[in-house]
Amino acid sequence: MPRQLLGSVTRESTVEDVAKLDFGKINPVTGPVYIDGAEPGDTLVVRIHEFKPCGFGWTANIPGFGLLADQFKDPALHIWTYDNTNPVVSAYAPFGKVPLKPFPGTIGVAPAAPGSHSIVPPRRVGGNLDIRDLNAGSTLYLPVEVAGALFSMGDTHAAQVDGEVCGTAIESQMNVVVEFDLLKGDNLQMPRFETAGPVTRHLDTMGYEVTTGVGPGLFKGAQDALCGMIDLLCARHNYSPVEAYMLCSACGDLCISEIVDAPNWVVSFYFPKVVLS
Amino acid sequence: MPRQLLGSVTRESTVEDVAKLDFGKINPVTGPVYIDGAEPGDTLVVRIHEFKPCGFGWTANIPGFGLLADQFKDPALHIWTYDNTNPVVSAYAPFGKVPLKPFPGTIGVAPAAPGSHSIVPPRRVGGNLDIRDLNAGSTLYLPVEVAGALFSMGDTHAAQVDGEVCGTAIESQMNVVVEFDLLKGDNLQMPRFETAGPVTRHLDTMGYEVTTGVGPGLFKGAQDALCGMIDLLCARHNYSPVEAYMLCSACGDLCISEIVDAPNWVVSFYFPKVVLS
Repeated sequence: MPRQLLGSVTRESTVEDVAKLDFGKINPVTGPVYIDGAEPGDTLVVRIHEFKPCGFGWTANIPGFGLLADQFKDPALHIWTYDNTNPVVSAYAPFGKVPLKPFPGTIGVAPAAPGSHSIVPPRRVGGNLDIRDLNAGSTLYLPVEVAGALFSMGDTHAAQVDGEVCGTAIESQMNVVVEFDLLKGDNLQMPRFETAGPVTRHLDTMGYEVTTGVGPGLFKGAQDALCGMIDLLCARHNYSPVEAYMLCSACGDLCISEIVDAPNWVVSFYFPKVVLS
Repeated sequence: MPRQLLGSVTRESTVEDVAKLDFGKINPVTGPVYIDGAEPGDTLVVRIHEFKPCGFGWTANIPGFGLLADQFKDPALHIWTYDNTNPVVSAYAPFGKVPLKPFPGTIGVAPAAPGSHSIVPPRRVGGNLDIRDLNAGSTLYLPVEVAGALFSMGDTHAAQVDGEVCGTAIESQMNVVVEFDLLKGDNLQMPRFETAGPVTRHLDTMGYEVTTGVGPGLFKGAQDALCGMIDLLCARHNYSPVEAYMLCSACGDLCISEIVDAPNWVVSFYFPKVVLS
């Protein structure tokens, strides 16, 4: 991984360092790995075995980035520390405790289209998918577009909400063990994955507070649901709005509850109550 | 509830009856209930206590309705039967077993805007929310817009996926016990709710198969993720596409995995493996 970026946020970093982040260097990934025998039309199978995180992480509000970028224009930073031998939970002091479940935010193979491609948007070949359930035990299937697949992975997160709403998760350097397999001529259209068991039991014990956005746009619905949760957390727990926004980026579910009763859809933001217990 | 509609699908109904459904009579609700003391700006608290379902339900593909209406143009119908004294699971014979968790698809108060309003689209006062976690033990908070709130409820479902993707859930007549409370001058913007405990443990035991849609539109992403799951189920289990589509409307999660890595978002369709075990 590019040491320049990994080294740019440390346990001692402050909010001033957020403004200095070089956006041209995100997201850091390791690769590409050439997969023998992989050809366009095949599916690369990635069995995700193990994570060894480094014991600290960070969540930032980066101006111009995030679901509520128009409302949160100032940089902010939270440093998380946790037990790297047993990364179960990390404090969002003094507010709560976020259950951890590491995964790679960016995981994918090379697109066939020529030229240089930004690593920020995910694509059908994967990339910056930010799917928080690609944890140890999950298996990811990626459509191969070039010879050798050219697999890369990085942007590792110790935990993340569905949606990565403020634009960053618990960004945390870690080693990852994966194993490759190949399905020949599978012609997969979009990435898919399989989980070995339940995905939310590390945070569902006490149930959820849920806010909604109801209206004709899913994107606006997601913004409204998130704003509702930020308002609720601030009113109830004395957070500042940006603190609530960053906490909401670390844990929860962002669900499309209803998408057929035209012209209005329902998007729901689920915040796990165990975080505040 | 309007007996005309409730009576229009029975345990003996066939696909021919789907074409005869009178869309002008959906969704059947009970109400309005006048809440003493409720005024605009208050929040109606609805504590959801108990469901007594009738022992059978139906899922239909209704032409012109549903997330993939353009692809599924012919009517289809599945009749579900289950134990009404203990509605834990219902067979989707011969394919699998769907865990049940009853809730009201339509639950809301009257909008202040004058005139006649279709009951199909949900609104900020609730209505056809189709939130599958409004089960027994959950508490719903609704913004009041008119004196007396005028609460109605119906369109009861024995189970539903996030999104109600084919347009119908396991539609099932039932009695519901709720209790009201009022928060004066709360000025809630959108419906919110609270769950008393975990929401997916009835179906998460064996993990999930997950398909994704990656691209610049959340609606298209949801369609792509759903199409991927229908293809997977058909290839693996010999379903017909419309059978897989209707099964996908009964169980699963429809999540926004990523909504900040412009210009592409990730929508994921989670199908619980326990259904096919």
